[in-house]
Amino acid sequence: MGGTVNDLGMNERAWRLADAAAERPSELRLAVRHLGNGARVVDAGVEARGGFGAGLMLARLCMGGLGQVGLTSLSIGGRAWAGVEVWTDHPAAACMAAQYAGWAITPDGYFAMGSGPLRAKARVETELFAKLDYAEDAARGVLVLEGGQLPTDETADWVAGKAGLGPESVTFAVAPTASLAGGVQISARVLETGLHKMETLGFDVRRVVSAIGTAPLPPVAENDMAAIGRTNDCVLYGGQAHYTLESDDDELEALAARLPASASADYGAPFYDVFERYEHDFYKIDPLLFSPGEIWLTSVASGRTFHGGQLDPDVLRTSLYGS
Amino acid sequence: MGGTVNDLGMNERAWRLADAAAERPSELRLAVRHLGNGARVVDAGVEARGGFGAGLMLARLCMGGLGQVGLTSLSIGGRAWAGVEVWTDHPAAACMAAQYAGWAITPDGYFAMGSGPLRAKARVETELFAKLDYAEDAARGVLVLEGGQLPTDETADWVAGKAGLGPESVTFAVAPTASLAGGVQISARVLETGLHKMETLGFDVRRVVSAIGTAPLPPVAENDMAAIGRTNDCVLYGGQAHYTLESDDDELEALAARLPASASADYGAPFYDVFERYEHDFYKIDPLLFSPGEIWLTSVASGRTFHGGQLDPDVLRTSLYGS
Amino acid sequence: MGGTVNDLGMNERAWRLADAAAERPSELRLAVRHLGNGARVVDAGVEARGGFGAGLMLARLCMGGLGQVGLTSLSIGGRAWAGVEVWTDHPAAACMAAQYAGWAITPDGYFAMGSGPLRAKARVETELFAKLDYAEDAARGVLVLEGGQLPTDETADWVAGKAGLGPESVTFAVAPTASLAGGVQISARVLETGLHKMETLGFDVRRVVSAIGTAPLPPVAENDMAAIGRTNDCVLYGGQAHYTLESDDDELEALAARLPASASADYGAPFYDVFERYEHDFYKIDPLLFSPGEIWLTSVASGRTFHGGQLDPDVLRTSLYGS
Repeated sequence: MGGTVNDLGMNERAWRLADAAAERPSELRLAVRHLGNGARVVDAGVEARGGFGAGLMLARLCMGGLGQVGLTSLSIGGRAWAGVEVWTDHPAAACMAAQYAGWAITPDGYFAMGSGPLRAKARVETELFAKLDYAEDAARGVLVLEGGQLPTDETADWVAGKAGLGPESVTFAVAPTASLAGGVQISARVLETGLHKMETLGFDVRRVVSAIGTAPLPPVAENDMAAIGRTNDCVLYGGQAHYTLESDDDELEALAARLPASASADYGAPFYDVFERYEHDFYKIDPLLFSPGEIWLTSVASGRTFHGGQLDPDVLRTSLYGS
Repeated sequence: MGGTVNDLGMNERAWRLADAAAERPSELRLAVRHLGNGARVVDAGVEARGGFGAGLMLARLCMGGLGQVGLTSLSIGGRAWAGVEVWTDHPAAACMAAQYAGWAITPDGYFAMGSGPLRAKARVETELFAKLDYAEDAARGVLVLEGGQLPTDETADWVAGKAGLGPESVTFAVAPTASLAGGVQISARVLETGLHKMETLGFDVRRVVSAIGTAPLPPVAENDMAAIGRTNDCVLYGGQAHYTLESDDDELEALAARLPASASADYGAPFYDVFERYEHDFYKIDPLLFSPGEIWLTSVASGRTFHGGQLDPDVLRTSLYGS
Repeated sequence: MGGTVNDLGMNERAWRLADAAAERPSELRLAVRHLGNGARVVDAGVEARGGFGAGLMLARLCMGGLGQVGLTSLSIGGRAWAGVEVWTDHPAAACMAAQYAGWAITPDGYFAMGSGPLRAKARVETELFAKLDYAEDAARGVLVLEGGQLPTDETADWVAGKAGLGPESVTFAVAPTASLAGGVQISARVLETGLHKMETLGFDVRRVVSAIGTAPLPPVAENDMAAIGRTNDCVLYGGQAHYTLESDDDELEALAARLPASASADYGAPFYDVFERYEHDFYKIDPLLFSPGEIWLTSVASGRTFHGGQLDPDVLRTSLYGS
């Protein structure tokens, strides 16, 4: 079993980031409360307003404090876009053991996908964590929820129980997809989507040494369904990711051809249109669609870089701005 | 009356930023002194040299610690420009109650326009602050002055008196327009110029939820008059701003048509030429000229984005580089 | 003799940065050890893995804590590149007295070029430091070594002796050219290469007031020789630097014509090809080749900007990506 890859575990890092944020609720427009059972809930966009600052906090929590995230200006298709830049020297841990939204939180009456480092303590996703060979022995932990419903005592008891902690040792941070903070934290998944697709393709993501990438920032959408479309499009049609990997050239060349979103048959239309095409059945969409639009894979052994995919500023503009 | 929108008031935030800067005078090339009456003067470009770091400090002071400001590389017209990026989750407070240079500091023998959070304590601009419904009850405060003349004891007494504070409770930070630090702090006004124009057009700026933007960095000019031309051109012909607002679509569509600088009849020539055309009478220039060149307005209600204006890299190059 | 230009000397700044890094060895993937004689060795890529974070640390150490360095996305030739941005208000001190790799570390059995602020304590490069009129009276200091060999007790004794310190008062930070951290710290030399060429051309670099620039990030190369090619190409064909200077216009106009890499007869091919053309004799290459590809020089006296050179995205792509 792998230990922590960091001086502090990702849960402890995230907890301290949450503490620091909780001291600035008005600046970050957060509502911070404790449930009856002691769990802390940091609302970054449900009843609280949230914003860009809250979104950066969420993204950093998601990555267990091992990802660097900032806002920047991007040039795509000769135009300027507000965007997110993210890099990490711990791609497997930060993106897959923490940031990936792989834990279905399903106590009675509640549903949300959970991300963040608490997943590496709970290890409910046994198959994934076995492959990652990663676990964290944390005394307290942080779970990020994407959705419009704040967790209740029952949710916290359920989560804490699965994680083997008391509810007072769990911090939740929550924002809907259709919120400023949600938009930042989802665009900051640009590296994670590529890692997840590698994992799906059978590539051992522990061989990814470091990663750096960017994605445009989605304008806030009317509702969560529209927001899911836009945020996906920011990664699929506007996301760029550079991965440095331990791999031989043949393997990387093949991976570079398959990894970008454009390698999927479902590529080419705004995500919401694809979703409608499949009659709103998420699971009919090609799972290999979800990946950055353009990727670079550099082998540390050979120094060669394999490039794949390209951005589509027209689809991006249609999705984000309607024209 | 509105209270503070932040955990600490903007004056207290700015004071602490000034304290931190005052501990690094050589690094930031500042001269920090106390006047006879106890007021603190942070010289960031008058007798002191200043620089990029001093300019970032000024920009952060101007925004009362509620704006994030950094230097970056921009792509405009297919060329690279050194630039400033700025974002805030508190546009009305940071940009209008603090950053806007709306307070004329006019004791005998002195003139400068004052910006920064002390304006929100002094509230001399009664009409604006009534509209903003914003006040700060601060025990000490920070005023930023754009100009080549350092404040004297008399200036400090006058300012402190208007603000209802003792002079020892006032910090001034000063840099000329034609200085490295001045260039940074003025380009960092890209969001503020758009908010001010919204206010002039009758739009309630408290409905602006968050804002993010960029502008090129002006090369230091020969004198303040030339610098005023260049710094304005950085915003008018090179400034881009994304605003997220509470508004209905019809209102935003109309606003997007009027908000960018290009909607003004005076748009199209370097600012200095416009100024000469009006025989150096600043007040003959269309006040609606002052705004970012390109803007995006996103409605949080509908999720729709309305775009207006465009950059003009040719005018920008002529203004900044002479060709 | 010049004194320190900063509140803390560059060595003390770098020492504290090294202390902070040494507290996060797993996050930064460093191996930190003490030699028998007490010298501290921070391995950022020899036996340790290093990464982007370690590279940023190295770049900041190199510049004695007086340079701001970050990762960003650049647009060159209409394409996106991961890159480094760097600025400083202390160009002569940070780039020439510290960052320039001018000290040959040559005890028996060891060779590396040393950079970082310890050079300003040792002042072995007597001619350069006389011109810079710069010295630091430091109680401890930091030297950065680019190479694949960690320093031994003998190396540390040799270095400490030249610097007039005990070995326990020296920190070494080391990474090979062909490493993630090495790539970051070398691209961050984009401003320094231009300053060094100015110095070679007889321009007093103390007249450079501030500087800001960018360069692409090299993908890790197969070996150090290939890495030297790529890292040089990032500056020569992808580096852009804006300098603000005290100088008259005639002098700057002449300097702008000579300063960019493109003014060299050896410009136009990947560095490795040039190196092969001269049969691997480094000293046959035009020393004036080493400079950013594109530069802007702004006179603080006249406010005029002189531009020189241009980037070459085709050579850059060939060098970094092979196509």
